[in-house]
Amino acid sequence: MPESLKRETLLANRRLVKLGLVTLTWGNASAISREKGLVVIKPSGVPYNAMTAKDMVVIDLSGKVVGGRRRPSSDSPTHLALYEAFPTIGGIVHSHSTYATIFAQACREIPCFGTTHADAFSGPVPITRLLTKHEVEEQYERNTGRVIIERFRSLDPLAVPGVLVAGHASFTWGKSVQAAVENNLILERIAEMALHSLALNPGLTALPEHIQRKHYERKHGPDAYYGQK
Amino acid sequence: MPESLKRETLLANRRLVKLGLVTLTWGNASAISREKGLVVIKPSGVPYNAMTAKDMVVIDLSGKVVGGRRRPSSDSPTHLALYEAFPTIGGIVHSHSTYATIFAQACREIPCFGTTHADAFSGPVPITRLLTKHEVEEQYERNTGRVIIERFRSLDPLAVPGVLVAGHASFTWGKSVQAAVENNLILERIAEMALHSLALNPGLTALPEHIQRKHYERKHGPDAYYGQK
Amino acid sequence: MPESLKRETLLANRRLVKLGLVTLTWGNASAISREKGLVVIKPSGVPYNAMTAKDMVVIDLSGKVVGGRRRPSSDSPTHLALYEAFPTIGGIVHSHSTYATIFAQACREIPCFGTTHADAFSGPVPITRLLTKHEVEEQYERNTGRVIIERFRSLDPLAVPGVLVAGHASFTWGKSVQAAVENNLILERIAEMALHSLALNPGLTALPEHIQRKHYERKHGPDAYYGQK
Amino acid sequence: MPESLKRETLLANRRLVKLGLVTLTWGNASAISREKGLVVIKPSGVPYNAMTAKDMVVIDLSGKVVGGRRRPSSDSPTHLALYEAFPTIGGIVHSHSTYATIFAQACREIPCFGTTHADAFSGPVPITRLLTKHEVEEQYERNTGRVIIERFRSLDPLAVPGVLVAGHASFTWGKSVQAAVENNLILERIAEMALHSLALNPGLTALPEHIQRKHYERKHGPDAYYGQK
Repeated sequence: MPESLKRETLLANRRLVKLGLVTLTWGNASAISREKGLVVIKPSGVPYNAMTAKDMVVIDLSGKVVGGRRRPSSDSPTHLALYEAFPTIGGIVHSHSTYATIFAQACREIPCFGTTHADAFSGPVPITRLLTKHEVEEQYERNTGRVIIERFRSLDPLAVPGVLVAGHASFTWGKSVQAAVENNLILERIAEMALHSLALNPGLTALPEHIQRKHYERKHGPDAYYGQK
Repeated sequence: MPESLKRETLLANRRLVKLGLVTLTWGNASAISREKGLVVIKPSGVPYNAMTAKDMVVIDLSGKVVGGRRRPSSDSPTHLALYEAFPTIGGIVHSHSTYATIFAQACREIPCFGTTHADAFSGPVPITRLLTKHEVEEQYERNTGRVIIERFRSLDPLAVPGVLVAGHASFTWGKSVQAAVENNLILERIAEMALHSLALNPGLTALPEHIQRKHYERKHGPDAYYGQK
Repeated sequence: MPESLKRETLLANRRLVKLGLVTLTWGNASAISREKGLVVIKPSGVPYNAMTAKDMVVIDLSGKVVGGRRRPSSDSPTHLALYEAFPTIGGIVHSHSTYATIFAQACREIPCFGTTHADAFSGPVPITRLLTKHEVEEQYERNTGRVIIERFRSLDPLAVPGVLVAGHASFTWGKSVQAAVENNLILERIAEMALHSLALNPGLTALPEHIQRKHYERKHGPDAYYGQK
Repeated sequence: MPESLKRETLLANRRLVKLGLVTLTWGNASAISREKGLVVIKPSGVPYNAMTAKDMVVIDLSGKVVGGRRRPSSDSPTHLALYEAFPTIGGIVHSHSTYATIFAQACREIPCFGTTHADAFSGPVPITRLLTKHEVEEQYERNTGRVIIERFRSLDPLAVPGVLVAGHASFTWGKSVQAAVENNLILERIAEMALHSLALNPGLTALPEHIQRKHYERKHGPDAYYGQK
């Protein structure tokens, strides 16, 4: 496994803390090497300030540890299910960031109320259903991945780079683990804005479709003109 | 009294400030040595940035100062009552952190709305009743301990590591003073999330029991698999 | 004028910024020497990070500048009116801190909802009436002091160390300028807690009188036992 | 183009991040040299911590790049439209700061609820209408400027130094780019206060006109007496 992917994964995990997205050990970031079929992920329950690249755990797609002396994040089966179902993504972040978690707890999706949202997510941030008793008792973390995938049956994971798991918290992803971190931050900010926009205007409806599409397209469409060439 | 317990107690008190849980002198942490029957506690009303391990006060279980030149926290009788009633705990934190105090002031317990809560507290965060006129006039701080203990008649203090005192603020505890600090931080975060989850969905009910139990058990149950071995 | 009072006033002004109570130049602190009949106050509209003790302005009780090359805070006449009416106070702070200002703008006093409040303020934090057209047009800042004094006709300024000016923001005070700063911080925190306690429980009433009194007395009464001797 | 204007524009952009007004690349600041008919603006999508004065882009009033190797902010046509329509302004800031964006998303102007607001904005902070489908499809950024200008038909841009674009976020301006940054910060703070003032008092009406006018005039009127001479 290239050391650079371990280092990137370490930095992504640390950045979650710096950005205020993770309290204590409530979150994890992973990256995949599609060529090697291997995933680098945060160790379970290790404090962020003590982590080094050596603590990063390398697992194969069946979840077997193939590198590192630590146990991988207990959420690893969720990450693996998503990497398998979404072949275009290269990194995943799970966090219990405050405002995204508030929407997850309230069991509400986040409608697109403004261009901040439209710049990164095409349409609402979706929410899964609650897991059944059986899904919780057997392969809980794997099934968390399955209800996310079920929710994405007709969605493109790169156009909608994150989800709220009902009663739990957020997962975000992207082409790289850095993009997954940024999408987690974006989700947190748009959740905060949406919460208070609804307080100010309880009957608020989504931004007109033509503005939503414009903003998404100017950043991510075939004729995108945002950023440097 | 071992110097290490004084040092741990000092660091725990300072960490409360760093984590934003304590404003001015609104909080205190203590640790108990069960073997020696002695408690180390923060001095009363001393600014955190000026405190050293020497300022920590050692008291016996009757509240008598046996070490240190300072007066102990005025909340010492509450700490002592809890150490006596809850023999499994090793450290206690009291703080007026913003969101936990908001629930205490509103006289509402915190229902378990998500896995962030279920990971640390088994069931709702309970709230005491208000103290009577008599309980306030005589042995106020001791009686604060008593109403907490009354509320915990059928609760396990390690499964429910904290409480809201109605009209006042929070007490949290754990096997060590470090655990008590972390539980205070967790309580603050879940209180903030619960407040806004209720704003977003005023009829919100608790997370299904099977998800609550699963999360608590995967961290604290006999077959816990979270964290390193 | 003793240099030490200038230095204390400078540090008090800077601490307002560090504590997050002041944005840009929205606040000022002053201290009085009762013996000399002189007041040290922040200069008007000078950025905090550029201020030195030399920028502090010394004025007499009529408002005449007797020391320093700067113009005094435009709120000086309010400070002077309060020093004249409240002979027991030694320092005053004015700030537009977020949550205190929210209550001032909403024209609502802050009821005592918990012991955090009761520890510092005896009873609700009062609010003035709005100034009339005439009071605004002539001697506006002096009249701001007058409506505060009017509101305090039957209140002890040391037992109630602050006020909300309707539609404007807060003034707090204390025996020293340091105490005035701490009371401004306390007011900001209890305003934040009160706002959200009301959101959580819109019918919330004040803490029972016997608990309010107990907390105030244990810190400030004749038999106070909080803090070091 | 004088290097000093590039440097000021760089510092203004960086200050937006330090003040917490900009997340990721969600904002930009520009300055105009009226003599040369040239505008300095942030490059598009470049991370703030990597930007140097050399990355600043110089464009003429038609939008043509005349200095710098980068592509200018995609919002440049909005800035240019405003510089053309508002000849008294010297700097512009666009940001998606949390609370200003919340009002923009909720499609509500910000009434003047207190003196903090009145000190900087004469009257409410206005909001534009939503752009039509046609305005979005052709010259979207230019049309964003046009709906702002349409809203300012009877307003003085120096007396009302900012606007909310419906469903989007804020633009603020001033005589210099530094003033534009400060007005963006002021807008963010008054939006936060207004949101919670409305929560506390849903029927709240604007501050009486005589107090609004007094505060604006004491800072900005012909007889202003706030600040140093």
